[in-house]
Amino acid sequence: MKKKGDLVSFRPDIKVVDCTLRDGGLVNNFFFSEEFVKDLYLTNLKAGIDYMEFGYKANKDLFDADKFGKWKFCSDEDIRAVVGENDTKLKISVMADVGRTNFQRDICNKSDSPIDMIRVATYIHTIPAALEIVEYCHNKGYETTINIMAVSKSNDSDLDDALELIGRSCVDIIYVVDSYGSLYPEQMRRLASKYLECAEKYNKIIGIHAHNNQQLAFANTIETLTMGVSYLDSTVSSMGRGAGNCPTELLLGFLKNPKYKITPVLKFIEKHITRLKEEGVVWGYDIPYLLTGRLNQHPRDAIQFTADKRTDYAAFLQHLYDKDSF
Amino acid sequence: MKKKGDLVSFRPDIKVVDCTLRDGGLVNNFFFSEEFVKDLYLTNLKAGIDYMEFGYKANKDLFDADKFGKWKFCSDEDIRAVVGENDTKLKISVMADVGRTNFQRDICNKSDSPIDMIRVATYIHTIPAALEIVEYCHNKGYETTINIMAVSKSNDSDLDDALELIGRSCVDIIYVVDSYGSLYPEQMRRLASKYLECAEKYNKIIGIHAHNNQQLAFANTIETLTMGVSYLDSTVSSMGRGAGNCPTELLLGFLKNPKYKITPVLKFIEKHITRLKEEGVVWGYDIPYLLTGRLNQHPRDAIQFTADKRTDYAAFLQHLYDKDSF
Repeated sequence: MKKKGDLVSFRPDIKVVDCTLRDGGLVNNFFFSEEFVKDLYLTNLKAGIDYMEFGYKANKDLFDADKFGKWKFCSDEDIRAVVGENDTKLKISVMADVGRTNFQRDICNKSDSPIDMIRVATYIHTIPAALEIVEYCHNKGYETTINIMAVSKSNDSDLDDALELIGRSCVDIIYVVDSYGSLYPEQMRRLASKYLECAEKYNKIIGIHAHNNQQLAFANTIETLTMGVSYLDSTVSSMGRGAGNCPTELLLGFLKNPKYKITPVLKFIEKHITRLKEEGVVWGYDIPYLLTGRLNQHPRDAIQFTADKRTDYAAFLQHLYDKDSF
Repeated sequence: MKKKGDLVSFRPDIKVVDCTLRDGGLVNNFFFSEEFVKDLYLTNLKAGIDYMEFGYKANKDLFDADKFGKWKFCSDEDIRAVVGENDTKLKISVMADVGRTNFQRDICNKSDSPIDMIRVATYIHTIPAALEIVEYCHNKGYETTINIMAVSKSNDSDLDDALELIGRSCVDIIYVVDSYGSLYPEQMRRLASKYLECAEKYNKIIGIHAHNNQQLAFANTIETLTMGVSYLDSTVSSMGRGAGNCPTELLLGFLKNPKYKITPVLKFIEKHITRLKEEGVVWGYDIPYLLTGRLNQHPRDAIQFTADKRTDYAAFLQHLYDKDSF
């Protein structure tokens, strides 16, 4: 695959998608302060970020609204309270999970909503259900993405079939997602190459959503970017479930487009992230995440191990091996 | 450049060099407990590590022996007190810095020493002085390396000349070193390619020593490894100056040679690294290191900023910009 762009110039097709509230919300059940959310919005504006993802469009019939902050549900009213009419270059996105969203009820016409893009997260076996949501949202006027999760567990021919199906749909953007942070750059490039072939054939855009279990989220993001991937997910200070995500501050340090500014993000970290960490909110690369990532497992056991403040890493690894052997 | 090896098999030419004492010693002035050093030696044996670097052969005329632990000086006696005759597969290395070592006095015949390999760290303008040490050590019977520091500050033609000079010497191994943690995988591959051409021409081996300022130490190590680099420096839990190094536990998770075992390293981390961190010894990726790395600067200002427990990152970035503009 030919290299796109170089280390001196920049590609105008690159878009940075801030997922701090959405993926970070998995760390604190979406209980962000009003000030955090407002400041993050202002930070993204100043930093030249292209999209800000506010959270999920979860179905309140399925999730108890008392147990989660409002960004689990992302009503248009709650978003508007932060962004007003959002008369800016920063677009707004939300995520809808297959089976966890009542899209017919909760997603109105784009013309009546502050939301610009709806991203649909799906496993490979629920792609038809994902495409149903995509088509619905597309017809309502939104940009749409499909984020195929856990591809590190899929086989190549299933993925080929999935990409054909998605390619023929009306979706705008297809995301390479390393759900378990298990993929090495060589594997990410191979995957991205497959997705980019589909993009070429069906005139789609490819995005990347990386996790940092093996300290590879940033490396995998910039490596696939160089190949032509253009929607880049990141979070401030890597905030996200488990080992977290590609850190926005590293990504903005790499990107050469002068519209991207790192200083607003540094100021946000000073004010908000250092405080969150002092309050004991925990995420980011650590040994247990390396171990689940390396074994291509869901991080849930590592999250529990970390929450329990355990440090018996060798026993934890044995536990993961034992799980894998049944 | 052709890819060497794949993600399933392994290359027997790969050697892992544990630099925990040497690079980690820059964090705590080499004041490691006896138990730490002994346990690290036993860990390396069990983990299948190929080399253990004990520290520096610093000149006691230049450095006050009261201000540093003994691994700044690495006398044969001190090493022997840990390893005895070291009748194992684990080789012992030490580092000699150009201008900071009295090699004629402090380095005896290999046959009388527990040390197997002497690594010479040099800037590009002191390569003739480095080659003098290399030749001396080679003639005494040691394996030798040259580690060219700060290549991210050198221009290509100087580096070409340097590699020619080194290629024609008796040195065994030449190291690609990312002193400031400033290099992206694309740049590391380009550098490694240059070094590997020299290796091909002059029958040398290439090694890599990466720093983690931009969370790229592991990625850069495995990317260049795939190209044919075979000596891989790492430290337990990334312990090393500033942002630290390529973490041994990530590297062993990647390598497929069954002789490498991650569990002994996890046990060492449980016992020793968690304690060091609780005692307040600080290293590892953090915002200030990202900023010096991105600007291709020595990490000393970031180390001071971190030691001062400052979090005014935006002001720190401005300070780095100002420095660069004089």
